[in-house]
Amino acid sequence: MIIKKRSYPFKVYSQDVDFQGKSTLMALGNMLLSTAGYNADDNGFGMKKMHEMNSAWVLTKLALEVEQFPQEYEEVHVETWVEEVERITTTRNFTIKDVHGNIIGNAGSHWVMIDMQTRRIKDLETLEGLRNYADNVASLIESPIKLTPIQGELIDTFKVKYNDIDINGHANSVRYIEWVTNCFSIDFYREKELKRFEINYISEALFGESLEIFQEEIAADDFRFEIRKNGKIACRARMVMRSR
Amino acid sequence: MIIKKRSYPFKVYSQDVDFQGKSTLMALGNMLLSTAGYNADDNGFGMKKMHEMNSAWVLTKLALEVEQFPQEYEEVHVETWVEEVERITTTRNFTIKDVHGNIIGNAGSHWVMIDMQTRRIKDLETLEGLRNYADNVASLIESPIKLTPIQGELIDTFKVKYNDIDINGHANSVRYIEWVTNCFSIDFYREKELKRFEINYISEALFGESLEIFQEEIAADDFRFEIRKNGKIACRARMVMRSR
Repeated sequence: MIIKKRSYPFKVYSQDVDFQGKSTLMALGNMLLSTAGYNADDNGFGMKKMHEMNSAWVLTKLALEVEQFPQEYEEVHVETWVEEVERITTTRNFTIKDVHGNIIGNAGSHWVMIDMQTRRIKDLETLEGLRNYADNVASLIESPIKLTPIQGELIDTFKVKYNDIDINGHANSVRYIEWVTNCFSIDFYREKELKRFEINYISEALFGESLEIFQEEIAADDFRFEIRKNGKIACRARMVMRSR
Repeated sequence: MIIKKRSYPFKVYSQDVDFQGKSTLMALGNMLLSTAGYNADDNGFGMKKMHEMNSAWVLTKLALEVEQFPQEYEEVHVETWVEEVERITTTRNFTIKDVHGNIIGNAGSHWVMIDMQTRRIKDLETLEGLRNYADNVASLIESPIKLTPIQGELIDTFKVKYNDIDINGHANSVRYIEWVTNCFSIDFYREKELKRFEINYISEALFGESLEIFQEEIAADDFRFEIRKNGKIACRARMVMRSR
């Protein structure tokens, strides 16, 4: 039987909350990615299948809007479904709910499948039956957009380290969220709260590579970021803030 | 009724495993700290009580030995109990088990309570009833030791950032585990696996502070670390490795 929408529970642990006791964006990103992993497994297109095919799912775009950041010890439920399956990209959406069923956040994401040897994108037609899970239901927020280049100011330079590298041999998608959200001070977060986050993953960052992060406020409270490596773009991101 | 030993379940998510698909030390550290938090709450001396008293639990020493690092999607159970309650320090032990009940790791930890205003250590006598939870059962491994100063070589310099700071306003204990384990390359981890880790937390690291990390191999496979800030010691750590 095809179950198109499923929900997965998560707990907010001490290390998931920031100095104000609210979940970090990184922690929410972890929940979304874990949910995607679990659901892909439940649908038969998860880790196990990917290992068999010597392939991996790679996140290319993510957009997330947060109404309310969960607090330490809160339980949240992340609902997910596949919106569509195109030739090389599949869209997966999410709704984050509190324990009472109230929506506290929404997200949309685009994924491609890569070959682990060549690191090239593969045709999703090779995943027979995947299309049956597409239910054509849009996310409750605007889809992830293609972020444009920025000039920006250099905020930080750092190397990709052991703890950044995941089982796919590149920096984990959530680490980029950490790097971007680390561009602001705790004083900034005392005044401002995230409304919308989006990220475009462009080229993978590998162990030992030096990364530079640039930031530009292109309009009031609309911050853009670029992570560059050797002149190439690793990712672009956006944080739209609101006053608390 | 006083229940002296309890067990808490955790799942190993994608972001908890390293490039070899095994749980990172950081992820195990998160499980231990979450377990301590949950159990303190269950005993009535957790976050809620600490907030009321304008106090916080602070980890001062941790020793952890790992037999087998759990893999992605594995479920582990962390059993914990309070060994003893002294005047300023309490000892909490842990056993990490796989889903079949096999022991895959053991840990011991020392905690103090601080006043959130003065950041000074408080007498544990002020926590009436805490002593009733002490069951005098030692951990299955050698207790955390006091680590001695090292000379060492400067490995890295970095600043304490937004995502490092927890609800107590200082760098989260698990971040130090990240910093220490980041001193090695993925090639190193291909050959060596952690056998015993220990850490002494000496002075708290605050937002924006610059930290330096020093490393010295004092005997074969016995690595010592020191994280320093402005000439002060923030922590000392030790990683004893074994060949895979």
